Amino acid sequence: MNNQKFSFLYDYSEGAHPKILEALSMTNLVQQNGYGEDNYCEEAKYLIKKAINNDQVDVHFVSGGTQANYIVISSALKPYESVISASTGHIHVHETGAVEAKGHKINAIETTDGKITPEQIEKVLIFHTDEHMVRPKMVYISNSTEIGTVYTKSELKKLHLYCKEKGLYLFMDGARLGSALMSPESDLSITDLPELTDAFYIGGTKNGALIGEAIVLCNDNLKNRFRYYIKQNGALLAKGRILGIQFKTLFTDNLFFDNAKHANDMAFKVAEAVKDLEYDFLGEPSSNQIFPILPNHVIDELSKLYQFYVWSKVDEDRSSIRIVTSWATPESEVDSFIADLIRINKQGRL
Amino acid sequence: MNNQKFSFLYDYSEGAHPKILEALSMTNLVQQNGYGEDNYCEEAKYLIKKAINNDQVDVHFVSGGTQANYIVISSALKPYESVISASTGHIHVHETGAVEAKGHKINAIETTDGKITPEQIEKVLIFHTDEHMVRPKMVYISNSTEIGTVYTKSELKKLHLYCKEKGLYLFMDGARLGSALMSPESDLSITDLPELTDAFYIGGTKNGALIGEAIVLCNDNLKNRFRYYIKQNGALLAKGRILGIQFKTLFTDNLFFDNAKHANDMAFKVAEAVKDLEYDFLGEPSSNQIFPILPNHVIDELSKLYQFYVWSKVDEDRSSIRIVTSWATPESEVDSFIADLIRINKQGRL
Amino acid sequence: MNNQKFSFLYDYSEGAHPKILEALSMTNLVQQNGYGEDNYCEEAKYLIKKAINNDQVDVHFVSGGTQANYIVISSALKPYESVISASTGHIHVHETGAVEAKGHKINAIETTDGKITPEQIEKVLIFHTDEHMVRPKMVYISNSTEIGTVYTKSELKKLHLYCKEKGLYLFMDGARLGSALMSPESDLSITDLPELTDAFYIGGTKNGALIGEAIVLCNDNLKNRFRYYIKQNGALLAKGRILGIQFKTLFTDNLFFDNAKHANDMAFKVAEAVKDLEYDFLGEPSSNQIFPILPNHVIDELSKLYQFYVWSKVDEDRSSIRIVTSWATPESEVDSFIADLIRINKQGRL
Amino acid sequence: MNNQKFSFLYDYSEGAHPKILEALSMTNLVQQNGYGEDNYCEEAKYLIKKAINNDQVDVHFVSGGTQANYIVISSALKPYESVISASTGHIHVHETGAVEAKGHKINAIETTDGKITPEQIEKVLIFHTDEHMVRPKMVYISNSTEIGTVYTKSELKKLHLYCKEKGLYLFMDGARLGSALMSPESDLSITDLPELTDAFYIGGTKNGALIGEAIVLCNDNLKNRFRYYIKQNGALLAKGRILGIQFKTLFTDNLFFDNAKHANDMAFKVAEAVKDLEYDFLGEPSSNQIFPILPNHVIDELSKLYQFYVWSKVDEDRSSIRIVTSWATPESEVDSFIADLIRINKQGRL
Repeated sequence: MNNQKFSFLYDYSEGAHPKILEALSMTNLVQQNGYGEDNYCEEAKYLIKKAINNDQVDVHFVSGGTQANYIVISSALKPYESVISASTGHIHVHETGAVEAKGHKINAIETTDGKITPEQIEKVLIFHTDEHMVRPKMVYISNSTEIGTVYTKSELKKLHLYCKEKGLYLFMDGARLGSALMSPESDLSITDLPELTDAFYIGGTKNGALIGEAIVLCNDNLKNRFRYYIKQNGALLAKGRILGIQFKTLFTDNLFFDNAKHANDMAFKVAEAVKDLEYDFLGEPSSNQIFPILPNHVIDELSKLYQFYVWSKVDEDRSSIRIVTSWATPESEVDSFIADLIRINKQGRL
Repeated sequence: MNNQKFSFLYDYSEGAHPKILEALSMTNLVQQNGYGEDNYCEEAKYLIKKAINNDQVDVHFVSGGTQANYIVISSALKPYESVISASTGHIHVHETGAVEAKGHKINAIETTDGKITPEQIEKVLIFHTDEHMVRPKMVYISNSTEIGTVYTKSELKKLHLYCKEKGLYLFMDGARLGSALMSPESDLSITDLPELTDAFYIGGTKNGALIGEAIVLCNDNLKNRFRYYIKQNGALLAKGRILGIQFKTLFTDNLFFDNAKHANDMAFKVAEAVKDLEYDFLGEPSSNQIFPILPNHVIDELSKLYQFYVWSKVDEDRSSIRIVTSWATPESEVDSFIADLIRINKQGRL
Repeated sequence: MNNQKFSFLYDYSEGAHPKILEALSMTNLVQQNGYGEDNYCEEAKYLIKKAINNDQVDVHFVSGGTQANYIVISSALKPYESVISASTGHIHVHETGAVEAKGHKINAIETTDGKITPEQIEKVLIFHTDEHMVRPKMVYISNSTEIGTVYTKSELKKLHLYCKEKGLYLFMDGARLGSALMSPESDLSITDLPELTDAFYIGGTKNGALIGEAIVLCNDNLKNRFRYYIKQNGALLAKGRILGIQFKTLFTDNLFFDNAKHANDMAFKVAEAVKDLEYDFLGEPSSNQIFPILPNHVIDELSKLYQFYVWSKVDEDRSSIRIVTSWATPESEVDSFIADLIRINKQGRL
Repeated sequence: MNNQKFSFLYDYSEGAHPKILEALSMTNLVQQNGYGEDNYCEEAKYLIKKAINNDQVDVHFVSGGTQANYIVISSALKPYESVISASTGHIHVHETGAVEAKGHKINAIETTDGKITPEQIEKVLIFHTDEHMVRPKMVYISNSTEIGTVYTKSELKKLHLYCKEKGLYLFMDGARLGSALMSPESDLSITDLPELTDAFYIGGTKNGALIGEAIVLCNDNLKNRFRYYIKQNGALLAKGRILGIQFKTLFTDNLFFDNAKHANDMAFKVAEAVKDLEYDFLGEPSSNQIFPILPNHVIDELSKLYQFYVWSKVDEDRSSIRIVTSWATPESEVDSFIADLIRINKQGRL
């Protein structure tokens, strides 16, 4: 990373929200039990249960998303059971086969918007008929998805109802859950999740924490001896306190949601400017990842000033780029980016 | 944990050394690449290579000891290969079968002092003769061991020579490496390790970091595509920077060794007091874990004032206890403990 | 299975070729070493090496195809490596996730004819760029494929050359290798295989044996301690002699090829009759599995007399069926089937 | 194996009992469904349920003992659960880590006679207290054991009762179950097994079959979708009929028990001769494996005439040997062996 140019590459380019660092400092020398059996984890769990308005769930903290995904999936499935995922799903593409490394096949569904529907799942179920094939038992979705789209409450309800009918677990990867929940494109609330999923996780790393994802187990079938799985997979931190402290902070004074809203606001501000210039997007901007389609010469000029991914070629003259914002993205950088975009665009038209 | 009574239960009861928190704050908003490809990780690797006086090794950072152990072991072994460990070894007892969960058998050697010798390994090799049995390929040792003992340079040299002759990898679990290296019972130096092991890790969590172990791969055979293993096992942190910052701090101004020396000094101060009272130990005090043997009534009184583990029954009247100190143990608490021990002891003899 | 109606369902509906039963009887009481270290296995290996005109390969016998597939694949791959397969591949569809159960992802390529090409593989390789993704390392093909098609020598040469350039292993599933090699649609010879694959297996079960597949390891990288993998996966039979006796018999007096030719001849005889009636096929008949497209009313009548799979709906009036023949299919049953087909067809047109 | 000298090395040196070969021939061309869904498997299951006097069990056939062991164990255990075994247990020593390869730790109990007791299991349970350790969930025993000893009904009852109290599954490896049941040292009957174990298998390979073990699942918890496990582990033979035919034959006209009785009788005849010569044994002869202790010079002379294993050094002058008999051991060879033993013994004393 070239530190001269501001980066819109990721939502994990900075450290933690200052309140988190402050909380780590304040509690630093208080002696606590290890392995997540400390007071801070207890308080964080309490606050999360309160936020989701459900105290029947089990909450566990781990360091990162790949861990959260493969531990939940492999603890829920029997050896011959498989998990259904969008072909764009993080577990299918970007986790180095972690799910398969635990022994389970992923049944991938081709998708253009990163989301999956009951109709698509139905086809997978119909295909898998007997003991010569794996048995699909879980549906994995990401919200927001890997390409920035979000599930509406109605979509999630349909998925959940279908899964329940078919005896499938529904698991939501919430690495970017904050941004999804604060999206104007979705009416889904965090209090809906315990009813509409069997398990989900609340992503901390990409929403202001140093590390940390909070796994929420809603279905009783998934709760049994979960700490054994966490430990066996090397995910039980000796100083589990640092996960507790972070989630306690995120779920105090609305910080988790404020962080996510700031990230979304910054993305939407860029999106508005792009729309004003009458450029298009790959998919409607819905969360903190947006994909404007720009002329290649504009992209070339912008990339001299800012860091971002050129995502895909659209036609001979245009490509899509990915702009990712976060809790830490200063509005001043967004304003500069917009100003530069307008200036470059104007030059290009001369 | 009862916060009223000072705890000698663990060396991970507190947060991080203040210099580490400070470094996290100072760097917090500097944008960096993710997944350990940031500048701080680079600097930390440079400092570690300098400290061990070897720039041919590969250094990788992960969050915790179980992760470090099972990832190194499973990346080094073929599916039919096994790892030899003391029966007290952390991988054999306290990692919920993480090594077996990756498919590998542990050949356990019964031991009283937590250490293993070439003669013991020889018996395991002789027993395993053909394809109906696993094939031992690695020797796992802990230094300091799970019961506080340490390897001398001469012991390690013999082990390493033997392993090399037999085509075995030698891997050292260094969760408490700092304390082992600062032990007056051992002449081993950190600069010896690249020559005397095929891989080892430098424990941060128990020596002043929030989280973090630095895996050092010395043997070229073990280096290939190691990041794939880290990622597949959910151990590649998005904000890998926080591991880099911590190890950079630990290996600046001798902090890693100073922390360990403080822990040892506190343990030895207690040990001296115990010796002065003419009490015995389970094994000679060598590192930050010591095991005094005390009359049961003394233990009862002490445990009203301090937290520690009662380790094992020695005879009808006496038991051993485990006292663990750390970088964070205040000398004032050690002094109080000693004063209380002397007082209780005196009362007992009246 | 209704024993009244002759079955064209499978090529494993009967026991073994009589010469194999005879050989089992003749050798029955001769004492031999266990676990494949007997004289018959030695002789069978010698005969196979002679048949493929290469004595540098390693030959191992196992009971069935799923075993052969997952053992070869999992012994060749490192934990983070994947295998590329057609989406119709037996390992992807019909082995209950055996490859994933050993920890490896399958990268599936959509295909209509069951075969894959370098161009399709190239796309997979380009997509997998770094340690966040699995690393494709092997290409799995079936010959004949699961839908009866066969590779020509030129197709296999191109695949092999491409794999070699890219550092990929090429592994051929030969469950129906006999039929593929005797296909008039292919000029491939068994002596070509050691040069054009890194490993393949010669299917016995579907070509006249009771059980048994002969794995042939051509690439030296794949040979090391292979018996450990066979044993660990429960595939090392105590009485390995019965695999040796069967393959010795199959590779004596051309029996392996004669069996396959008979199976093909029976299928082609049916195919000719179908063509004479001016019906079409799903794919050109190439081996012992053919897929005629017939009017539904013809299928209904035929299925009162014979057993076979109705494979897929083609349009409102027609479906494809699967006819499988084997070494054991009597020509008289084929003749009856053809006569009945002609008769029913005539009736239908009245 | 030198075919000149008669072998007492194994109980799998010959093919199958002639009645089995005859049954394979008689049924050879009858068309049947594949994958164990044929009439012969049905009949064999019926006969086994009748023999054990219980029709609530599930019966499945696989090829060999390692398969049976690791499939039963890994299907019963959750990823963090372990299996308790004698240190001499086949799964611990002679299966190339197959159980660990499926992810499970074996808790080994040191034993001298190959058997384990509730007291020994208790110690394992007490040691394993929390989620930092594996959770023992199954007890594996072999009957007869790997060193020829057998469980009495009373011993098995105690084990079973204890396991039930503690929530442990009890699984009996019956590779040599026939010999164990026909042992004069045990009053255990095959009809006791459904009540006194949660699962067991009936060994065919070492008692007259070419291949084949019949897994009997007694506890309902272990029955669910067991065929998926069989298939995923490559153990579902396409021509499953050959397992059905063999077990149908073994459980017709008492053949299974007659085979075992013959094996035992032959061993005991040797044992009587050894006793007459006033030689000792490693353990009381109880089944078809006996371990006479003989002077080394006697062993040297015998080994010029017969094949057998020299098992262990007893003192400077004496060693134990292992004599294994089977359904196929001709009494004439036993008589010759005894005559030679007497002759050599007499010479030695001159």
